[in-house]
Amino acid sequence: MRMFVVKYPFFLVLITFSPIFATRTPFKKSEPRKRIVLYYHDILFRGNDTANATSAAVTKPTGLGQFMQGLMVVFDDPITKDQHLHSTPVARAEGLYFYNTKTAYSVWFAYTLVFNSTEYNGTINVMGADMLMEKTRDLSIVGGTGDFSIARGIMTFQTEAIEEFKYFRLKMDIMLYECHKKEI
Amino acid sequence: MRMFVVKYPFFLVLITFSPIFATRTPFKKSEPRKRIVLYYHDILFRGNDTANATSAAVTKPTGLGQFMQGLMVVFDDPITKDQHLHSTPVARAEGLYFYNTKTAYSVWFAYTLVFNSTEYNGTINVMGADMLMEKTRDLSIVGGTGDFSIARGIMTFQTEAIEEFKYFRLKMDIMLYECHKKEI
Amino acid sequence: MRMFVVKYPFFLVLITFSPIFATRTPFKKSEPRKRIVLYYHDILFRGNDTANATSAAVTKPTGLGQFMQGLMVVFDDPITKDQHLHSTPVARAEGLYFYNTKTAYSVWFAYTLVFNSTEYNGTINVMGADMLMEKTRDLSIVGGTGDFSIARGIMTFQTEAIEEFKYFRLKMDIMLYECHKKEI
Repeated sequence: MRMFVVKYPFFLVLITFSPIFATRTPFKKSEPRKRIVLYYHDILFRGNDTANATSAAVTKPTGLGQFMQGLMVVFDDPITKDQHLHSTPVARAEGLYFYNTKTAYSVWFAYTLVFNSTEYNGTINVMGADMLMEKTRDLSIVGGTGDFSIARGIMTFQTEAIEEFKYFRLKMDIMLYECHKKEI
Repeated sequence: MRMFVVKYPFFLVLITFSPIFATRTPFKKSEPRKRIVLYYHDILFRGNDTANATSAAVTKPTGLGQFMQGLMVVFDDPITKDQHLHSTPVARAEGLYFYNTKTAYSVWFAYTLVFNSTEYNGTINVMGADMLMEKTRDLSIVGGTGDFSIARGIMTFQTEAIEEFKYFRLKMDIMLYECHKKEI
Repeated sequence: MRMFVVKYPFFLVLITFSPIFATRTPFKKSEPRKRIVLYYHDILFRGNDTANATSAAVTKPTGLGQFMQGLMVVFDDPITKDQHLHSTPVARAEGLYFYNTKTAYSVWFAYTLVFNSTEYNGTINVMGADMLMEKTRDLSIVGGTGDFSIARGIMTFQTEAIEEFKYFRLKMDIMLYECHKKEI
């Protein structure tokens, strides 16, 4: 909707006043149009708890600093609508995270939320840095499929519970700004 | 084009009836505008077949379950227009996948399609979960460069051939919904 | 703004001539609306230089070819406004890269630029292939948060200095095409 040439003076008034052109600012500011709050549970494999564990380390810390730099975990973690680990999952989170910083606990995440519930079918793809010491952290929703076709938005993490290198629970605040589905 | 305040009653009729505002529904539903079908070949390195192999494992399974959880592979795989492995590649797929699930064969993919052919120049970036036991799987096209500048869309995988931990061929159905090139 | 049905003949003239519909071409071509040039410094950990190193290898080369295929590095690297390594960083780059090709030095990158300066607050998420032997390489900006909310664009890399497997400096040319902030 940009860089067109106004050829018809007749439309000039219309163009000048029309609220349509509120979008012609350099970038558009907007609010999320759909919000979903879910809870993410990660139980790290410790060698013998196959029944409960949902993630496992694939690399070891490198020794660069004291904050596990280099430890990478791949996961297929349950996602629930409430905070209870044993509630029926409404989705899975499939992907990886790894500790990447020598001076603080900080990880980098990339994963797919796979929904297969009565409410939603499809996936949401997420990536971003997760600085564990901050109260909330914003990651990017970079795409989606099915009910979340071509989704874009922000995913806010908040740590709710942590047993170090054993279990953590995140509150995931999913804010969708764009999507190619008329209704979700 | 949202959340503007109507200040000029004169335009009210126009606004109310104009079909332009068909876009003011919560989200837009749409169809792909460009579709490309290609074939993806992966030949896993087994220690001595450097001439043929195009991918190799960088980590080992963790022991969480019986489905290779933790095995990560990095690749530079040939992409062809037909199903034949030895056809001249029209692109390369560069990236990683890893097995992430304890209860089924399922991998997570992130990669770049690098085109350098008479037809296309540029890249398409892809990420998503690939549940191998399902007939088709949808991943996200999250970006692109060159002929695929700022592309968005869906990439559907279908396994066409598999020799376990040695070779597989995927049919990739590339559906582009958005792009900053007028013509591809 | 597509696939609407014209129900009101009164608006037909308007629709036919309105420059608004310049956007109804199959795809839109456009120029970046915001450009930021920054410098990326990576100092690879060699076992004893914790004070200086900012990245470390988490896997070893696989032996597929002579170009380090399989070597994966995770990092929290400083980003500066000028080319000097010791300038005050304006951002950090957090993520991973890995060598993925048997016939040339080529890596695949995924990372988050984390800004926390007087100028910018927020993140930019990036992924793409980085063929080291080419003068410039284009990666995708697939998302952002804060000042870069829902950003999309192209990130062009140019290698400026390299001491093999010890240090490299990249010029990062950040070109934003879309963003949900009115002003950056």
